[in-house]
Amino acid sequence: MDSTRLAVLGSTGSIGQQTLEVVRALPERFRIVGLAAGKNIDLLAKQIREFQPRFVHYQDKIAHPPSGEYELLSLEEIACHPEVDIVVVATSGKSGLSPTLAAVKAGKKIALANKESLVMAGEIITSAAKQNAAEILPVDSEHSAIWQCLKGEAQPAARIILTASGGPFHHYSSAQLESVTVEQALGHPSWQMGKKVTIDSATLMNKGLEVIEAHWLFNMPFDNITVVIHPQSIVHSMVEFIDGSVKAQLSHPDMRLPIQYALSYPQRLANPQLPHLDWSRNNHLTFEQPDFDTFPCLRLAIEAGKKGGTYPAVVCAADEVAVELFLSQRIKFVDIAHYLEKVLERHQAVTCPTLDEIMTADAWAREEILRSANGESP
Amino acid sequence: MDSTRLAVLGSTGSIGQQTLEVVRALPERFRIVGLAAGKNIDLLAKQIREFQPRFVHYQDKIAHPPSGEYELLSLEEIACHPEVDIVVVATSGKSGLSPTLAAVKAGKKIALANKESLVMAGEIITSAAKQNAAEILPVDSEHSAIWQCLKGEAQPAARIILTASGGPFHHYSSAQLESVTVEQALGHPSWQMGKKVTIDSATLMNKGLEVIEAHWLFNMPFDNITVVIHPQSIVHSMVEFIDGSVKAQLSHPDMRLPIQYALSYPQRLANPQLPHLDWSRNNHLTFEQPDFDTFPCLRLAIEAGKKGGTYPAVVCAADEVAVELFLSQRIKFVDIAHYLEKVLERHQAVTCPTLDEIMTADAWAREEILRSANGESP
Repeated sequence: MDSTRLAVLGSTGSIGQQTLEVVRALPERFRIVGLAAGKNIDLLAKQIREFQPRFVHYQDKIAHPPSGEYELLSLEEIACHPEVDIVVVATSGKSGLSPTLAAVKAGKKIALANKESLVMAGEIITSAAKQNAAEILPVDSEHSAIWQCLKGEAQPAARIILTASGGPFHHYSSAQLESVTVEQALGHPSWQMGKKVTIDSATLMNKGLEVIEAHWLFNMPFDNITVVIHPQSIVHSMVEFIDGSVKAQLSHPDMRLPIQYALSYPQRLANPQLPHLDWSRNNHLTFEQPDFDTFPCLRLAIEAGKKGGTYPAVVCAADEVAVELFLSQRIKFVDIAHYLEKVLERHQAVTCPTLDEIMTADAWAREEILRSANGESP
Repeated sequence: MDSTRLAVLGSTGSIGQQTLEVVRALPERFRIVGLAAGKNIDLLAKQIREFQPRFVHYQDKIAHPPSGEYELLSLEEIACHPEVDIVVVATSGKSGLSPTLAAVKAGKKIALANKESLVMAGEIITSAAKQNAAEILPVDSEHSAIWQCLKGEAQPAARIILTASGGPFHHYSSAQLESVTVEQALGHPSWQMGKKVTIDSATLMNKGLEVIEAHWLFNMPFDNITVVIHPQSIVHSMVEFIDGSVKAQLSHPDMRLPIQYALSYPQRLANPQLPHLDWSRNNHLTFEQPDFDTFPCLRLAIEAGKKGGTYPAVVCAADEVAVELFLSQRIKFVDIAHYLEKVLERHQAVTCPTLDEIMTADAWAREEILRSANGESP
């Protein structure tokens, strides 16, 4: 079998690096033809030496470009290139949107790890994918789980049960959350991830964004998506069918599995580096209700998803800035939700927005939250 | 859509009655054309009045046959009848073997709830099914779970994880088991079932037979079938794939779901009578190792399965008699395993047996265990 040619956008991030680990473990099945990174040029240069991609992109103009025989292309050019079989969109934030849209319009297979694309422009992306027969292959562990559980079913799901670890502050009271530090918020109990998504997991914003993503990926009404807290992060999500039967996907929390599944789909590949669940010891799996009052970001994101229009883009953008402000210790952990709520209240939404309108809303939300942080208290 | 024409063999038993409940709930989708029962003629007569089947069978010659306009046929004649779309084999014990084999040879769809057929003659039935393009649709909740999890997968499973409730004596010591009563053994914590299978659940023999069944149904080596104790009976079984991903099927312990799934496959049908899992309350799912020393029937059955030949038939037959002896209070609970072990030790097995040789082994085992119970102590 010919090896699958991959372009990894965001190759120096957490998902990007784990994608390259999968390729390293299965060199006969996958070949890197494109690499794109933001500012971590040192790591990108190493990756270029190791994988010798044909196409490269980096964000900034730099004095000493990485050595190697590659063509310097834009993210969008790499995303649509005919020599790329699967585009892995693993950039963080809104930078994933434009290349995702380019790949979708080119009818590509897109292994999508970037939440923001679908949250900001779910309608635009999913209808363009349909029109151009592009395939969106989910990489998030939760959406991969749902996808795996739906495989082969003759009918759509009746309900999606999205699991959440609950993050490092599971069972904290609102009062306890008042004083949590950046260091505590970055200490996720079960997943190794980038900083932004780790903070989003602590606020449960991450799960709210995933609800919106699930809505678009699986064409599922918001009222039929249930979030349950599952601190062990073994059941990655579940699907309920009309007959009451539920299917769940389980594994150790290791992103290489959903990454590999998206790349090898519809096949599965043996990879000795992937851990297997151990049934020779006792296992306890627990499922609890999320606390929407103590973790208002979850509620805010789902409400924004239900309202639609430019609301989800505003949540995404405002959260990105708020998390940066928290990481640089300019606002408290609980302020992330406070600022978000204010911004959402003030937003004058556009329904059925164009891409430009989404980008305008994004820019507005970023300015608005900075204004709040600099001036009036939330 | 035309309704599916069903023949239910063993219609007065637990699975048979629940099959009729499914038909009652979905009268436009299913129609009963055949009913067969053993000795419970009163209930059969009621069922005949309600469902007006074209074909009927009952075991004994009776003075007052149930009224109705039906044709009296043998189990095998009903099982192969061209007007039957799916044969539900829900008889208990070895009486299921002959009609199952007849249906398989006629290339039928068989919703198989009778464990003994596959345990006794797995090789013969599965190769005849292949040869005649017959479809065996599993009805056991565990095998239905595995079947549902495998649906749509491009590759076979790497491992089957068969869950067991552990029965009413989970965590009992061998000493405690010495004095358990019939009443205690019949008090299963999560499933409502017939007496024989309830006792088999208490000894874990049921799980051992299911391991053998899974081996044949899914062509899975015994070493790749793991039994785990899951007292809540919510996860009905799991499948692990070569990439380490595990899929599980969950639902309330209610046999109507796997029965309905076998009948509606590959579709799923909404049935308001089927309970849905409630994620609005906390759920704890636990998984533990089975205790092969305290529950030797599990080990004995799996060993018999691995040895193959006529050993599984001997386990089936000897267990059937031993359970009857226990239910009639002629032997103790722990003696079920003792007698089984003796009989298996004394058995001179035939490899690749014919159906006649299987029946001879069955008869030998029954006599042997009765001889033990009447004479020498095990």
